[in-house]
Formats: sequence, C-alpha cells, structure tokens
Amino acid sequence: MKERLYLYDTTLRDGQQTQGVQFSTVEKVQIARALDALGVDYIEGGWPGANPTDSEFFTERPDTRAVMTAFGMTKRVGRSAANDDVLAAVLDAGTPSVCLVGKTHEFHVTTALGVTLEENRAAIAESFAHVVAKGREALFDAEHFFDGYLANPAYAMSCLRAAFDAGARWIVLCDTNGGTLPAEVGRITAEVIAAGIPGARLGIHCHDDTGNAVACSLAAVDAGARQIQGTLNGLGERCGNANLISLIPTLLLKAPYASRFETGVSHAALAGILRTSRMLDDILNRVPQRGAAYVGASAFAHKAGLHASAILKDPSTYEHIVPDLVGNARIIPMSNQAGQSNLRARLAAAGIVVDAKDPRLAGILDDIKLREDQGYAYDGAQASFELLARRALTLCPTFFEVKRYRVTVERRKNKRDQMITLSEAVVVVKIGDQKMLSVSESMDATGTDRGPVNALWKALAKDLGPYQSYINDMRLVDFKVRITQGGTEAVTRVIIDSEDAQGKRWSTVGVSANIVDASFEALLEAVTWKLIRDGAP
Amino acid sequence: MKERLYLYDTTLRDGQQTQGVQFSTVEKVQIARALDALGVDYIEGGWPGANPTDSEFFTERPDTRAVMTAFGMTKRVGRSAANDDVLAAVLDAGTPSVCLVGKTHEFHVTTALGVTLEENRAAIAESFAHVVAKGREALFDAEHFFDGYLANPAYAMSCLRAAFDAGARWIVLCDTNGGTLPAEVGRITAEVIAAGIPGARLGIHCHDDTGNAVACSLAAVDAGARQIQGTLNGLGERCGNANLISLIPTLLLKAPYASRFETGVSHAALAGILRTSRMLDDILNRVPQRGAAYVGASAFAHKAGLHASAILKDPSTYEHIVPDLVGNARIIPMSNQAGQSNLRARLAAAGIVVDAKDPRLAGILDDIKLREDQGYAYDGAQASFELLARRALTLCPTFFEVKRYRVTVERRKNKRDQMITLSEAVVVVKIGDQKMLSVSESMDATGTDRGPVNALWKALAKDLGPYQSYINDMRLVDFKVRITQGGTEAVTRVIIDSEDAQGKRWSTVGVSANIVDASFEALLEAVTWKLIRDGAP
Repeated sequence: MKERLYLYDTTLRDGQQTQGVQFSTVEKVQIARALDALGVDYIEGGWPGANPTDSEFFTERPDTRAVMTAFGMTKRVGRSAANDDVLAAVLDAGTPSVCLVGKTHEFHVTTALGVTLEENRAAIAESFAHVVAKGREALFDAEHFFDGYLANPAYAMSCLRAAFDAGARWIVLCDTNGGTLPAEVGRITAEVIAAGIPGARLGIHCHDDTGNAVACSLAAVDAGARQIQGTLNGLGERCGNANLISLIPTLLLKAPYASRFETGVSHAALAGILRTSRMLDDILNRVPQRGAAYVGASAFAHKAGLHASAILKDPSTYEHIVPDLVGNARIIPMSNQAGQSNLRARLAAAGIVVDAKDPRLAGILDDIKLREDQGYAYDGAQASFELLARRALTLCPTFFEVKRYRVTVERRKNKRDQMITLSEAVVVVKIGDQKMLSVSESMDATGTDRGPVNALWKALAKDLGPYQSYINDMRLVDFKVRITQGGTEAVTRVIIDSEDAQGKRWSTVGVSANIVDASFEALLEAVTWKLIRDGAP
Repeated sequence: MKERLYLYDTTLRDGQQTQGVQFSTVEKVQIARALDALGVDYIEGGWPGANPTDSEFFTERPDTRAVMTAFGMTKRVGRSAANDDVLAAVLDAGTPSVCLVGKTHEFHVTTALGVTLEENRAAIAESFAHVVAKGREALFDAEHFFDGYLANPAYAMSCLRAAFDAGARWIVLCDTNGGTLPAEVGRITAEVIAAGIPGARLGIHCHDDTGNAVACSLAAVDAGARQIQGTLNGLGERCGNANLISLIPTLLLKAPYASRFETGVSHAALAGILRTSRMLDDILNRVPQRGAAYVGASAFAHKAGLHASAILKDPSTYEHIVPDLVGNARIIPMSNQAGQSNLRARLAAAGIVVDAKDPRLAGILDDIKLREDQGYAYDGAQASFELLARRALTLCPTFFEVKRYRVTVERRKNKRDQMITLSEAVVVVKIGDQKMLSVSESMDATGTDRGPVNALWKALAKDLGPYQSYINDMRLVDFKVRITQGGTEAVTRVIIDSEDAQGKRWSTVGVSANIVDASFEALLEAVTWKLIRDGAP
C-alpha cells in the first residue's frame, strides 16, 4: 500500500517572478493544460488582482483535473478579512483552492510589515478562518519559515499552528531566500511534525540559491512532508524553484520513492516529460539546457571512450535509468576522446555497420581530428558526422552539385522613404545534366527580412528536381554560430538544426572564414542527410 | 580548530567529457591558472596518452601551488604494472600526484572487463603499490562504488581496502552513473568509514544526473569524507559533475561548514569566483546561466514587488548571503530609485553627469529594458550603452548618414576551375550634402575571403571624408555572434570589439533578424563612439 505524495506546481506564479519572464494569458493556459496532462495535483495560476495577466488567466482558465489554486496574502492588520480588498480579489477568482502567503519570521513581522507578533499571528488565524468559511481548500505559504524557526522556533510554530487550527488543509514550509541546506530542511521538518503538525498536512517549497532545491525537497519528504511545490525547468525568482522536471522522474523511478509513494503522474505521462520541458523553453524562447537532469540532450550522451565501449556491451553499465522512460535517447558523440569502439557504436546507431578490423575506421578518426582542428565540431552535429563517415566508406551518393550561388543583402529606402533590408539569393544546381536556377527573397510573413542564410535556404529548397518531394517537409528550426579563435583570423562555425514533418531533428555543421559560406555548407549537409535517410535514388 | 577540507578539480578531465567541449592546450593552461588562483588543492589535468591535447598539456602545464594530478586507469590484467604501457604513459607525465580509476562493482568487473573478481582486486593492489613505489601521491577513483556497494558490499569494500593497504592517499567514492541520491550517499559513506577507511582519506565524486550532485557531495562530507571532487560550472559527462562554483561559497559562507572547515580558498579569492565562472563560459562561448546559484546574473535579482520593497528596507530580508562575497551584485527592478542611482553611477563613469532629478533617467531605463527585450545586451557593450544614453540626453551628434549599403557573397568557379568565394560591399554615406560611394572586397593577404561583414567594414572605413583621419587607426579585433531566442524566430546579436592605435578597446552591439544588418549596426556604433571620444566636430 503506497502513500500518496502530492505535487503542486507554481510555474505560473513563482515561475513568473523569473527575471525577464512575462507569460501572456494564452501561454498560461497552454502551460496549465500541459501541467494537467503531466498529472500534477495543484496548479497555482497566479495572484488575482496583482496584475492584469494573472486576473485574466483566472477568468479564462481551462478546466483541469488538477486543483486550480489562486495565490494571495493573509489579510493586512487593521482591517477584517472580510474587508480586505486584496484578499477579496483572490477569493473572487472562484478557485476551489486558495494559497495565502504569511509571515512566520519575527524579524520580517517587525521589519518588513512593522506590526506586532500577535497582530501577525491573529491575521493568519482570521484569514484562514475566512477562506475556510467560504468553502475553499486553504494552503498556508509559511514565508521564511526555516529562517524564522531558527530565529524564534516558538513564534514560527505558533504561526503554523494558527493556520492549522483555523482549518488550513496544507501548511507549506517555504525556504523563501533559498539558503537552507538539505540536512537542515530535513531536521526542521521532522521537528515540525514532532511538534504536532502531521506530515500528511505538510508541504515543502524550496529555492535553488545554493543549488540544492531538489535535494531539500527530497529531504523534507524523507522527514515526512507529503506535498512538494516546484516549477517546470526550475523556473522562479532569483535562482529558481525546485525543478519538478528533475523531481518527478526521481519520485517515479528511483528508490526509495518509487516503491513508497504514488503521485498523480503516470508512467505514460512521465515518458512525455521531456516534451513538457521543451514546451516551456519554446514559450520562453530559451535554448534547452543540454545538461539538465533526465531531459537534457546530453543527459544520456556517452563521450568517454571507456564508457562508450561498455555501453555497447550493456547500457546499464553507464546509465542510471533507461532514457526512454523520460522520453529521452542515448547519444554516443564523437570527439578527440573517442576510441574506435566509440566510433563503431555511433556508426551502428546510425545504421552503418563496420567491421572492427576495417582499416578505414582509423582514417575516419583522423579525418574527424583534422576537421576539428579546422573548427568543425561533430558532437553537436550527428548528421554531418554520419555524412563524413559515409564518404570515407563510399556510402554517400552525390545527389546534386551546386555550380554557384550568389546572395545579396541590401539596405536602402523604400518608396515610403523608410529604411528596409532585403536579402536575395540565387542558387544554381546541376542534377545529372539538368541545370536549375532558383532565386528567392528572405522576407517572412511579418515582412521581416530574415537575412542571407534564410534566402539561400529558400532558393536551394525551391527546385531540386527529382529530389524536391524529399525536402518539401524539411524546415530549419535552429541556427547556432560560433566564432572560433576570434580576432581578425576569425573562422565561423555554423550548426543548423533541421526538422521534418514527423518531428525528427538532425544537426549539421559548416565552417568557413565567411559566415554565409559556412551556413551554406551546413544547409547542403542537412539536405544530403535527409535524401540518404529517406532513401532518395 | 577547523578541519581541513580538500577540493579536487576535474574540469580539465571529466569536464572535457562534456558533449561539445574540447579544450585547446592554451585554454587548459588558462583554466589551470584560474583554478590555482581560486585555491583548489588538486588540479586533474587529463589523461596523459589518451589524446594529443591531454599529453601536450602535461608538457606545457603551468607551475601551480595546487597539486597537479594525472588521471589514468589501474593496470590491465595479464601484464605487470611495470609493463602496462597505458599506466606508464600516465606516470611519465611526471606529476606529483596520480589518480587511477578502477572497478569496484562486480557486474562491471565481469561484464565490462571480463576478468575475475580476484584478478581485478589484485590489479588494483599492484597498480597502487607501483605508483606509491614511484614516490607519487596516489588517488583511487573507485568507479561505480555506490552501485557496486549495493550489489556486493563485501567485494566493493575489498577493492577499496586493496588500494588503501597499497598506500593510496585518497580513496574516492565515485557515483559514476550519477543515480545515487543524497541520503544513500551519506549512509554508504558512513558505512565505509565504519568499515575502517578513515574519513580523512575519503573523497567524493558525484554527477548531476538527478540534479543532486551538490547535495550528494555535502552529504558525503556530513558523513565524514574530506575531499570533494567537482568542476567549474558543473561541467562534465552527461549532466555534469558536482559544481564547485556552487559548493565553494556554501562551504565558506554557510552553516555548519563555514565554522567547521577550512579549505584552500580565501575569502578574497571567493570574491573572484563569479569571474572564474564567466571565464569558463567565455572559453566555451556559452551564455552564462542567469539562474546559477551564487554567480547567476539573476541570483540576487528581486523582481516580486513585495521582495523589492523589503530589500530597500533591509537586504537581508530576501538574501541568504551578501552578493559581494561572491563578486555578484543585487539587481532591483529598474523602475525604482535604486535602479536610477545605479544608472547615474554608470553614466558618471563614462563622463556623463546627470542630475538625480533629471526625468530623462527614467526614459533611459525604459529604453534599455525595451531594447534588452529585443535582444540587445549592454553589459558586454559599454560603448553602445553610452551612445544610447547620449541619444536620450541629446549628447550624440549625427556625424554622417548611411543612405544605403549592398553586400554580395558569391561562390563560383574561378578561371582555374576552382570553387572560390568572394564578398563585395558598397556603402553610400552622406556627410552634410556630400555623398560618398565606397566599394570593397574582403580578400585578405592570404587570399582568403573573410566574408560580408569584413567587406562592409572595409567599404565604410574607406572614405568618411572629414572624419577619415579619426578612424584610420581603428581596427576590428573581435566579433561575437549569438543567436538569441533561436528557432525560426531567431534574432542575431553581434558584439564587435574595436581597438585604436593606443590599444584602447571598446565594444558595440547590433541586433537584427539579419546577421549582416546586426553586424553593420555594431560597426556604425563603433565608429560613432570613436568620433565622439576623439572629439570630432
């Protein structure tokens, strides 16, 4: 018989406190749906009345299985809960659940609020009595609890008790400044339970200011707390909140949690958690962190030669979980560290089987080393690595030849006397004895000029004769530029990520002193890889 | 009397296992110097013989106070330690300290190595006897120790004991797959000590696959281990290693560690830890993580209204440490007073004095925020920041106007039937009622085409009429490109560093969906800043 562990997401409230983050209402609805599909128990939607977006979200919030929660603060001293307009705005959002932040640290009561300890405790009690009387599930967000407990345990506990006795369903211990370390969080949580607040009524809310938010949350659960608050990708004020994308796989897959607890997240939903993480990055226009626990693109990348050779024998030798369980995949990248076994493994993964004694293996490694010295990088460009190997193994047909190209970027006044930029590209391709001339501009739907590389891609993709049908569903999804060695001798490395209609992604690399040339090389590689993958004649 | 805690950095070895990371020897030397200045006790420089860069580093390694350590593996079964060429290459590096990885997990001994348990244990014993006999300090990197201990505690312990009895100074417990959680790391570390390996001889080596590497390291120290292994910025295979940039401030500043332990890191060095972190990002051309513990740009940013107002009363209300201690700074929403005084200070530093009551200050802050939302960055582009302020304060004359430009990049066959690339730019500038047309190619002395930006710069700098004499000594020394947002909406940020004959350097920024356009904006800013600085009429 497993114990129930509850997950409370505050991406839409505390996550919105992240510097530079401002969700639109549409984005908030999209995130709420994703959280509900993932299976969290509570979704904190924001602070009704605090700003227009938060208020709007509650009027347009989607129906969710998860309990929608409005955030606010305990009533101010000097007026009754019924007459506090800030609290009223929170209740008016009409959510089944309400979370109110309140002070438990004497220093904050006197310094930040400037009221007496008794006035603050009374405000907590009255606020929760009011919310409970309205028939709402109530949560007490005990701000600065750990610091407050260290300063004055009796007072901090009396504030928890005030909310608890007034009927709050959950007492959430918040490490607001994020400075409390895991051992301390565990010790104090245990003391709170010993002092009479049952663990089944305790939640934990941690921040990552020391890089321990996930561990602090686990320490509180170990001590008996049964609700974890966090955010997607650890979004949140300052260094962020506890990362639910890291915590959920641990809770579902790893000892002792997997066998002790059940959550609202199914294993089927867990397999979609990587996509949930990427969705948030997309909304924020953030490049996903390659090293993120469980979901990072590098999380199951085995670079060291020793590791790679063992992985070939048995993946469990260097993986603590099976990547598929979180929707991730194994990668065996190339690099100057890699031995031949690493190389063969990566070729095998790409469907290219080479005998261990094939002398061309050494040649491929030398070729990689040589090109890496020129500025190429194959760790992040698997497709170009495959093409390099295929060429060495004479498994790479020449589908077409680019005879020449020309791209022009022009900035000038238009008829309406406004400065505009326009890029135009001409690409001349020869297929067999057929010659194709294509020309394109790079204006997008919004009338924005997207530059020379975009123009070249449009021209190249315009007419590839017999191969056109193979590339019609191909689009460029990311473009990374790195200037290697810098200065006037600068050489540019461009890595392009492409995607097809099925959502399959592949990365290619180009290098040149001329950034346009480097980009074009990466484009050609991307097209060639797709033609091979789709078996073009 | 404080206990000594040792810090062992493996950025140059395990950090190099990061997907996409390849340090040059020059970069490795630079990192080693920074680590030594920071005050770590050991620097693991790499695996001599495993690849050219690692071997080269050991021949060119700098003199350091930190103990330089070569990494390798225990001798292979079937030959003596003296006759193992891999081990010989490690010893030949001549470092005072040697760290050898070896198996302690029966499954790995039989599956990955394919030898008997006894053969493996004997190889460990013989290898360390050999290294110690050579007069080196020896470390045993006990691979997969935690998993191995769970599978067969007696065998795993006997492997530690073999190295210990052979004279290894340090027994390092490695959670190679990164799957062990903090509580388990603490429990097993305590059991190892209880079984007879003193904590003063134990090290901990964790990976971040569950987001707990920092917490696992602290748990091992709590249990008695006295060496922590980690990397700068948590670089490392898969999800990375324990992040020393997060651990060091915790060990020096926070209870119970600050009062219990001393390390080789001084508080003066701690104040430089943010710069050390940024240096590594620069070498890797990575965008520093805003939310990084202690050193992130957002680590002390107070966005929530409640927090910001309290911070003004007393910073300790919402900060767990004083930001200056780690070389970081508090960020308070630009809107309020603090933001404006910061701005005035920065302007004063640039010789622009503005009255505290000047209403245009708020306008400048709004402008900065707006443009940063568009992708501009002014931290790395002081000259553009000054120009932005000067425009708002009407202190920025318009020296000339660019009526239009056109740049062409062409790739085609030359007379000798070789593919060549050629860039050409035309720039039309108006000064007063004088109009100048300039055209340039971008071929350098070696006959290499340096691309469209280079061609544009040459054309712009060719004839600026009355201003020509001011820019003759100006040259572009660096060019950084970053794709902000990414994806198809990609916007390009270009930062250009310029230098004059006196070696004075200044940085300017340009942003556009068109990379050429972004570069040209940064070029114009660079020229304008120099004309102002040199007092052009």
